[in-house]
Amino acid sequence: MALVAILPFFLLMSFSSSIEGKTHFHNWDIAYKLKSPDCFQKLAITINGGTPGPTIDAQQGDTVVVKVHNKLFTENIAIHWHGIRQIGTPWSDGTEGVTQCPILPGETFVYSFVVDHAGTFIYHAHYGMQRSAGLYGLIRVVLPPGEVEPFKYDSDQSLILNDWWHKSAYELSLGLSSLPFGWVGEPDSLLINGRGRFNCSSVQGGTCNATNPECAPYVISVVPGRTYRLRIASVTSLSAFTFQIEGHNMTVVEADGHYVRPIVVSSLYIYSGETYSVIVKADQDPSRNYWTAVNVVSRKPQTPTGFAIFNYYPNHPMKTPSTILPLGPLWNDSASRLKQDMALKAHPDYNNPPPGKSDRLILLLNTQNRINGYTRWSVNNVSFTLPHTPYLIALKERLHNVFDQKPAPDTYDYKTYNIHQPPPNPNATYSDSIYRLKFNSTVDVVLQNANTLNANNSETHPWHLHGHDFWVVGHGVGKFDPEKDPKGFNLVDPIEKNTVAVQPYSWTAFRFRADNPGVWAFHCHIESHFFMGMGVVFEEGVHRVGKLPSRIKGCGASRV
Amino acid sequence: MALVAILPFFLLMSFSSSIEGKTHFHNWDIAYKLKSPDCFQKLAITINGGTPGPTIDAQQGDTVVVKVHNKLFTENIAIHWHGIRQIGTPWSDGTEGVTQCPILPGETFVYSFVVDHAGTFIYHAHYGMQRSAGLYGLIRVVLPPGEVEPFKYDSDQSLILNDWWHKSAYELSLGLSSLPFGWVGEPDSLLINGRGRFNCSSVQGGTCNATNPECAPYVISVVPGRTYRLRIASVTSLSAFTFQIEGHNMTVVEADGHYVRPIVVSSLYIYSGETYSVIVKADQDPSRNYWTAVNVVSRKPQTPTGFAIFNYYPNHPMKTPSTILPLGPLWNDSASRLKQDMALKAHPDYNNPPPGKSDRLILLLNTQNRINGYTRWSVNNVSFTLPHTPYLIALKERLHNVFDQKPAPDTYDYKTYNIHQPPPNPNATYSDSIYRLKFNSTVDVVLQNANTLNANNSETHPWHLHGHDFWVVGHGVGKFDPEKDPKGFNLVDPIEKNTVAVQPYSWTAFRFRADNPGVWAFHCHIESHFFMGMGVVFEEGVHRVGKLPSRIKGCGASRV
Repeated sequence: MALVAILPFFLLMSFSSSIEGKTHFHNWDIAYKLKSPDCFQKLAITINGGTPGPTIDAQQGDTVVVKVHNKLFTENIAIHWHGIRQIGTPWSDGTEGVTQCPILPGETFVYSFVVDHAGTFIYHAHYGMQRSAGLYGLIRVVLPPGEVEPFKYDSDQSLILNDWWHKSAYELSLGLSSLPFGWVGEPDSLLINGRGRFNCSSVQGGTCNATNPECAPYVISVVPGRTYRLRIASVTSLSAFTFQIEGHNMTVVEADGHYVRPIVVSSLYIYSGETYSVIVKADQDPSRNYWTAVNVVSRKPQTPTGFAIFNYYPNHPMKTPSTILPLGPLWNDSASRLKQDMALKAHPDYNNPPPGKSDRLILLLNTQNRINGYTRWSVNNVSFTLPHTPYLIALKERLHNVFDQKPAPDTYDYKTYNIHQPPPNPNATYSDSIYRLKFNSTVDVVLQNANTLNANNSETHPWHLHGHDFWVVGHGVGKFDPEKDPKGFNLVDPIEKNTVAVQPYSWTAFRFRADNPGVWAFHCHIESHFFMGMGVVFEEGVHRVGKLPSRIKGCGASRV
Repeated sequence: MALVAILPFFLLMSFSSSIEGKTHFHNWDIAYKLKSPDCFQKLAITINGGTPGPTIDAQQGDTVVVKVHNKLFTENIAIHWHGIRQIGTPWSDGTEGVTQCPILPGETFVYSFVVDHAGTFIYHAHYGMQRSAGLYGLIRVVLPPGEVEPFKYDSDQSLILNDWWHKSAYELSLGLSSLPFGWVGEPDSLLINGRGRFNCSSVQGGTCNATNPECAPYVISVVPGRTYRLRIASVTSLSAFTFQIEGHNMTVVEADGHYVRPIVVSSLYIYSGETYSVIVKADQDPSRNYWTAVNVVSRKPQTPTGFAIFNYYPNHPMKTPSTILPLGPLWNDSASRLKQDMALKAHPDYNNPPPGKSDRLILLLNTQNRINGYTRWSVNNVSFTLPHTPYLIALKERLHNVFDQKPAPDTYDYKTYNIHQPPPNPNATYSDSIYRLKFNSTVDVVLQNANTLNANNSETHPWHLHGHDFWVVGHGVGKFDPEKDPKGFNLVDPIEKNTVAVQPYSWTAFRFRADNPGVWAFHCHIESHFFMGMGVVFEEGVHRVGKLPSRIKGCGASRV
């Protein structure tokens, strides 16, 4: 009954704020620059000269207009606004091959969208492996005046976490698409707000300068006794992290733009594509600084701990703690990671529970496969490839024969498949087929992880859904049983997210409403995994999409 | 009188062979590969796995169809068929921004054109600085059966010369377009048929393996006593070369696809964009091998001599001569270079002299300038920029406001300008304005070199005209005088070329007929100079161009 009363209030709020919303204009030059984020110099894709790019700040209901000038020499781009649902603007999602043609060098492309709810979001390249080249940044959306968050703090700071390679995105891409296969390997360094630390003395060539101010550690300065909201986002190309502040507990209050029932952690697991807000009180010995540390989990770490300095005023900001860097929980403690996944629930005052039943179950088995010798990732034995004509254009303008019209498979042989063994049939097929969803229907998606091609190995995959938030209704170890497990779904207070992890040999289930006309990518947010085929595409209500702007066209069958 | 009799024969020949011509189909995958052409491994743009790409062989009048598959990840391409006039197919010239939109990753583009006269030609990327990344190769067009060349040889071999950098084309481009300016510097090595030699012991990082077979010297094997035609082409990004074969004279017989009055040289000057055929007799001591050597001229050499082995059968092909590598003439002997330029004349039996008078004189002063601090090259104080909508599409389809409509300047203040001083007004302007030529008119172009921004420095610039051959009617040291110098033009037996050098503080004049409907780039063939604005564009008879194929569209104002 309480919920029914709250809903109209939400709708009204959203409506009124979009009318009153301001428009924020941004002008971005996307260009290569030589950057040394971890002291080692390499060509990075920058926005107005920087990586990470500028933070976009807006208020719920505002419109954000980003005029992107592609100043790369011969290379296209596309930028995705991760966590922004693009209601009414599916052509602004920035997903090359799905919602737009790439932006050519010398051209200017305008992204325009409404940020319809408060929270912490990110943006990043969604073309090839350009995210790993440095094209990413933060979006912070605040509540309208008069509205309050269910937590208090004195000040707000943001940290964007990344992993970093010295090899170019081309060389990484080439390895992944070559025979023999060349894996990207573990990152050379971990970055906090674009700053990391590589051991220059280990460098054989190139330029590495440990005293370059570009790689000085990031400093989070706090005043003893005050309370801080830290917005933490991960755009890693590969790594799952634990994040911790030496000697400080953190209270998780927001995830992917939704308030959560507060939980206290000493270290926070964060996967690529996720955002969190935590509340931290500067309540420790104020006579020293503390480490802020990120460590790799879920893959055996081969990269030194990434760090920033948690600086208690008036200590010198660059005074490094004499303590050792925190290492966090064991990298392979997947039970502990699953525990965090399961502990996250909607905030009781902001609970917006899912529909009680779903119209369709899509059961997606993640496997590693080989196709003609090439190593690929597949979903229900289909390894995704992007079409040359973006789906949104193809579907809206009825361009035929530009992608595989056979429906993508809704399930796999879950009764007999052994998720603890390498795939018995490693041969998958390439396809750009998609899932067409009934508009306004409720869909359950279950992601099932299994053994990779190597015995005794299963990995963690954070999956990101474009155009929606979803309710995370369940996690489980082992094989999902479509008869039994849905009975255990949490339909009472599930967290809403746009990105969710699936742990090794485990499953994750979520529910969403196919209520946003458009075409939406859904994929593993590990950049090389999506590059290797680990993704699918959902279409819903494309007939309701308005006239497409011509700026998204020009490639494939959408040439003149 | 003899000429009048010959002309109809030429026309008939060309007509009949185009009717009888065969069609040669090529399927090319353009992709990054790790290559070690000079033993140092770097990412190169390859065609079907190689750099140089495959040689295109055809007979005069044949049609060549090249299906180009762009398998780069995020990068576009365009390929220019250098020396092929593209009569009736101006959309196949492959010049990004002039005749087509770039070819997007994942897309396939078909180039189709007639090779209308015999000779040695090249192909290469014409987009950004991708030529320097390895995208180039040879085109050899032979005479139809029954027709004979005015020289004899037992066998035909080809050598394509290049200079090579270890930095990526991105990094080179970035330097050129940065403040402060970062010059590309002298090449790391010189390549003959894609093979060179870098001193791996000087390498600090990266992979360099002196025993990699990819960088074994190229071997030209000859049988003692036999006579060879060597086709020699240069696609360098920067360097002018001397080419020599230790102990052997060479008789120059062809230049840019035209037979020349034979001249004997001990070393051949060859500029980027030029092709020559020389006749060499294997008439030296057959008990040993000889060096084939390329050395940098016209810039102070900082790159070791490039070499191949001129192998006398049955000596072991890899047996290096015990002699020292030939060094050729002095790098700064521009008088000697001008002498070769002036010695080249049309072959008397194939002389096709120019019209006796021209309708227009375009006098182009080459200067180095600064615009807002950026270092640029300019022509008559205009530094060229490519528009985002290719000219051919803009003009043919009357798209307005997509490039500067003001005519590009036909002259400069030649009376007062001091070519021996740095430019008094270093501030040029950017423009994408063009020269519109009356269809079928005769045009004289004079290229005037001057002092760069640094005192006592003037450079050599090889200029290449698309869509035409031109008659080289004059060269001179100093400043061209439009009143006096045209009287000295050679209108009797000038060589026909598509690329011609302009020496330091000197001028070069040529005449051509604006008889090929289309839009044609004319630019310095030094890749970084064109990148820095050293080029212009000619339009002629665009109203006579047939319907444009949609495959060239999709960018700028030619989006849907």
